[in-house]
This record gives sequence, structure tokens and C-alpha cells, in this order.
Amino acid sequence: MQLPLAITLGDPAGIGPEIIALAFRDAPQATAGCFVAGDVASLRRASACIAGPGQPALPVVVLDHPDEAWRAPPRCIPVWQVGAPMPPVTLGQVSAAAGELAGRCVAWAADAALRGEIAGLVTAPLNKQALSAAGPPYDGFPGHTELLQAAAAAHAGVPVAQMPVRMMLANDELRTVLVSIHVSLREALDAVTFDNVLQTLRITDQSLRRLLGRAPRIAVAGLNPHAGEGGLFGREDLDVIAPAVAAARGAGLEVHGPIAPDTVFMRARAPQGRDGEFDVVVAMYHDQGLIPVKYLGLDQGVNVTLGLPLVRTSPDHGTAFDLAGTGRADPSSLVAALRMAQRLVGR
Amino acid sequence: MQLPLAITLGDPAGIGPEIIALAFRDAPQATAGCFVAGDVASLRRASACIAGPGQPALPVVVLDHPDEAWRAPPRCIPVWQVGAPMPPVTLGQVSAAAGELAGRCVAWAADAALRGEIAGLVTAPLNKQALSAAGPPYDGFPGHTELLQAAAAAHAGVPVAQMPVRMMLANDELRTVLVSIHVSLREALDAVTFDNVLQTLRITDQSLRRLLGRAPRIAVAGLNPHAGEGGLFGREDLDVIAPAVAAARGAGLEVHGPIAPDTVFMRARAPQGRDGEFDVVVAMYHDQGLIPVKYLGLDQGVNVTLGLPLVRTSPDHGTAFDLAGTGRADPSSLVAALRMAQRLVGR
Repeated sequence: MQLPLAITLGDPAGIGPEIIALAFRDAPQATAGCFVAGDVASLRRASACIAGPGQPALPVVVLDHPDEAWRAPPRCIPVWQVGAPMPPVTLGQVSAAAGELAGRCVAWAADAALRGEIAGLVTAPLNKQALSAAGPPYDGFPGHTELLQAAAAAHAGVPVAQMPVRMMLANDELRTVLVSIHVSLREALDAVTFDNVLQTLRITDQSLRRLLGRAPRIAVAGLNPHAGEGGLFGREDLDVIAPAVAAARGAGLEVHGPIAPDTVFMRARAPQGRDGEFDVVVAMYHDQGLIPVKYLGLDQGVNVTLGLPLVRTSPDHGTAFDLAGTGRADPSSLVAALRMAQRLVGR
Repeated sequence: MQLPLAITLGDPAGIGPEIIALAFRDAPQATAGCFVAGDVASLRRASACIAGPGQPALPVVVLDHPDEAWRAPPRCIPVWQVGAPMPPVTLGQVSAAAGELAGRCVAWAADAALRGEIAGLVTAPLNKQALSAAGPPYDGFPGHTELLQAAAAAHAGVPVAQMPVRMMLANDELRTVLVSIHVSLREALDAVTFDNVLQTLRITDQSLRRLLGRAPRIAVAGLNPHAGEGGLFGREDLDVIAPAVAAARGAGLEVHGPIAPDTVFMRARAPQGRDGEFDVVVAMYHDQGLIPVKYLGLDQGVNVTLGLPLVRTSPDHGTAFDLAGTGRADPSSLVAALRMAQRLVGR
């Protein structure tokens, strides 16, 4: 019997519960074998919110054990209550209670995945302010990634520094893995080191092999215009990135580059199912990778955390407090994250 | 009577003459009132090259004066011989002779535009190595932009530093103006100063007013991820870009930002004639602007030099020596550059 996938609630004051309810209602394949690691009352409210006027709300099924997710009837929302039930929070407002509940669900799911009780997790969005207001232990983590990284390091008995992670952003046309994320561009330049680039290539290769079932064709974006134009526009492409690419190739990885940043994404792009020239582009900094992934405004963007001993995907949007409770939130990015997680766990 | 537009030959060993011949054959509206500032023999060869087997080549009409461009018959190539005729160069090879001819045509057209004898120029691609091999004065210029900038400064009697230029890249969906171009990313960071950003905004506003006939809606991309996230990821967005935006707004410009770089291009994008949220995005460095402009692989990319007292556009590709003489070169970017120039001179 396959292990179930957990969908963590996200901040209950945001659109998380609604998009989860919409996914269970409208995407039965993507939600097969999934359950919500969350809170029953929040899901009941979300289910009522997405029901049309006069229509019955999707029933919420309370699980006695996560494994029951596979036996839940169709067109219901299977929920595992994480910790004590709590009164619903005010929608659209930052609160410590909401942050604590959201953090608690992620921590539970991370531990369950690390103990091998669930196949992986798909995380609905957190609010970073609420997480910070929740106090210890959650206020020590800027977001999901750091929380999962700490849980995985603790489980493995190693320092967090020995549990390197990378973010992959993917949509229907393009996948990109980032060498660094939430630092200034100046700090991102300093993070372009031989070790960081090679580590990114190794993590990318391992993760994409699992996703594609074969060695991925990895393109490496240069750092400077025209990948440095032979050293005229900066030396990093020659002195740092090219040696890391050579080392990765020496280790048997299929890696190409560094390639001029302004054309590598166009070359990797695979519009409407056609094959791109590469399976993934390793980008040297946040915006280099995210500008092309977001340019077309595709709704199906997915965030995948690579490098951890667990599968974790998430939609590429936030809590959208302004939309919470309106029933107008769009579940397509969550559904895409569910599909990606299903593929990563081998379904 | 309106002044004609000059199309400069480009490197005669590249695809320039062929795409010019194709434009005159296939795009009569875009080439109306245009002539080639070039070389008769090179154009005759290009005309023969694009003619199908057994078909007559498009005739080359030698002008006695640029103004005759308006009276040239349809379906011919009007050419103004710049300097002495010369024997055709070998296609696909870098040579000093080709570089000298290409440079000579640009220098002539720049002077003609500055003297008010032509309305502006559309430049076919140069080969930088050939230009460098041509010796003085051409070897002092990395490319068109610097050559035109020097000519304009000399004509105005000011140092080159007082003739600031900016590059705009445009396709059917997106326009972007770059604060800096061919420098390392590290140097590009240092070029993000209050003065440079404000100057870019002024130049962008002036040029786009001429193009659109109204004040443009200018978006400014931030430098750091999420435009710095309130200072968490770098201070430049707060300390440098925001004050420049405020100064531009104080001067009456419609400027928005700094906006998160990973979403500003998506917001400005105007697919299939629909209106984007902004008319142009000011990008802080080369790849920030060029990644989204090139991502879709659109053939109609146009390069516009802003800030000079003359109109200059060009296709966004190079000499493609490997294609020269095959008749397979694609004129669509040149035709788009011609259309853009026609709009900029008020037709």
C-alpha cells in the first residue's frame, strides 16, 4: 500500500483552506491518496464558502489515521486534525493563533514524512508575519523551507548547514533551480561560488532524475551579460561557473554552459508540450530564474524544495488575505503542486 | 516633403544586404521613403541571392540624391553609394575592407541625420571584429551606439559624456530600457545610481512620448528580489531607485516603482495587442530586461537607441556570417525596426 500525501493547511486566515477544498472538489486525480494535515473547523468553513448558493457543502471526513486517506469516499475532504481543534480565526487578518496552527501542521507533516508515515507534503501558503507572531519554535523560521530544513537536519542528526536545499520553480513550459534566493543581488553575486554551483548541479540532477526517470539535460545560465563575453564583461563565468560545470560533467552529469542568460531560458522553454533544448535551467540568482518563469503569467507555477530527504511542493503564490472567504481564489497552482508531488513520489 | 530614412548596409559579408533586399521586396509599406546608404555591388549581389531560380532579381536603382528615395519605383532597391564603389567582399569572412565600408555607411548616415538631410537611420548589423580591423576612425568604437554617440557629441560640440544614450529593446509585447548594458553584473550594480536611474527615466519619457503621442506609463524594475522586501534583501531599492522615481514623478513623469523584478515584466506585457499595465519597463541591468524580451523567441525584436538627437533603430540580431549568401536570412526584425523608425519620425 502506498503512503498518502499530506496537504498542509496553510494560514487559516488566507486562501489555503479554500483552494484545498476546491482541489478536492474539482481535481479528483490530483488529490487521490491525499489528506489535509489541518483543522476540521477551518476546512468546514472553507467547504461552505466554495459551495454555490443553495448547494450542499463538500463533506469533511475526519480521519482516525492518515492511512485512511486512501479509503475516503470521493468528493469529500479527508482531514487529519493536527493538535487540538480551535475556534476559527478571522479571515484576512494576521494572528498569532493562525500562525501557530499553520506552523504546527507543517511541523507535524515534516516529522511524519521523515518517519516514513507519509509520502511527502504539499504546503498551502503561510503568512510570514503570523508565523513570526506565533512565537517559539515557529518564529525562528522565515518560511516553510527553513522549517523543513531544520526538521530534516534534526532527524538526520546533522547541522542545518549539512542539509543544503535549493528551490525549483516550474510551470508547464520551464523549470529553473536557483543557486540563491532571498538575499540582495550583491550577496547573490558572492554566493556564486564553485561549491554552491556544483552543489546546485548535484541536487538538480538527483531530483530531476526522480522526476523524469532519466538523467536530466541541465543548462547553466551565465552570471554576466553574454556569459561574460570571454571575460570582457566579468570573470565569474570563466573562473567560477565553467569549472563547476566541468566538475559536474566529470562526475557524469549532463550539464551545458555557462550559456548567455538572455537566451538560455528561451532555448529551454517547452511550449505546449514540445520539447525544449534542456530539461531545467540552473539560474545564478532569484530574478534571473523567476522573471522567465513568471513572464507568461501562467497559473500553474509550482515551487519544489530540492535536496531534502522528503518530497515537498507548493503553489507559487501567497496567502492572498484580500481574497480569503470570497470563493474567488484559484486552485490551479495548488493542483499543479499536487500533480508534481504525485510524480515525485512515483505515481 | 518628408525626409527619407536611410538603411545602412551593415557588414557586407553578413546577412545585412540580403535582409535589406528582402525588406524592399516583401514589405513595401515599411520601406516607403527609405533608401540604402550602402554599396551598389553588394546590393546587386544580395538581390540576385534572394531571387528564386529563373526569377529576375529586384533592380537596384542608384540615387543621385537621397531625396530621390521618394520617387523610386516600387519593387526596386534604391541605393545611395557611400564613398567609392568597391569589389564585393567574401561572404561570411571578417575583413578590414568590409568593416571599413560598414563603418563608412553609418558615419555618413549619422552626419546626414545630424545635418537634417535624412529623417533617421535603421542600421543593419555590423561585425565588431571587422570594424576593429578597419582601423581609424572605426576601430575606436565597439559598435553602432558608440559611433553614433560620438558623431552626435561632435555635432553638438560637447563631450561624449554629455550625450547620454540608453538602449531600448522592444517586440510586439514588451518594451524595456536598460540602465546599463555591456558591463559585468558587478559593474552594473555600481551603475545603479540616482543620476543614472533618473537620466534613464528622463530619456525614456522623452522618447516614448514621441513614439506614443502621449506621456508613457513607465514601470521601474527593482534591483533586488521583491524590490528589496523593505530593505531585508538590499538597500538600493529604498535608497537609490525610490528617490530617483520620486524625483521623476516630481518632474511630472508617470513613473511607478520600484516594482518586484519577477512580476513587473509580466504586468507590462501586452500580448496580441491587448494593453499591458505599463508602456515600458526600465530595467536595472542587461539580462533583467533582455531575458523577458527574448523569452518568447519573437522574431520581431527591435533595438532603439534613445537619447540622441537622431532616430536610430536596428534589428536585434547580428551579422549571422554562417547564413550569408544562403538566402535563408529572416528580415522580420529589420522590417520591425523599419516600422518602429517610421513611427518615431511621425509617419
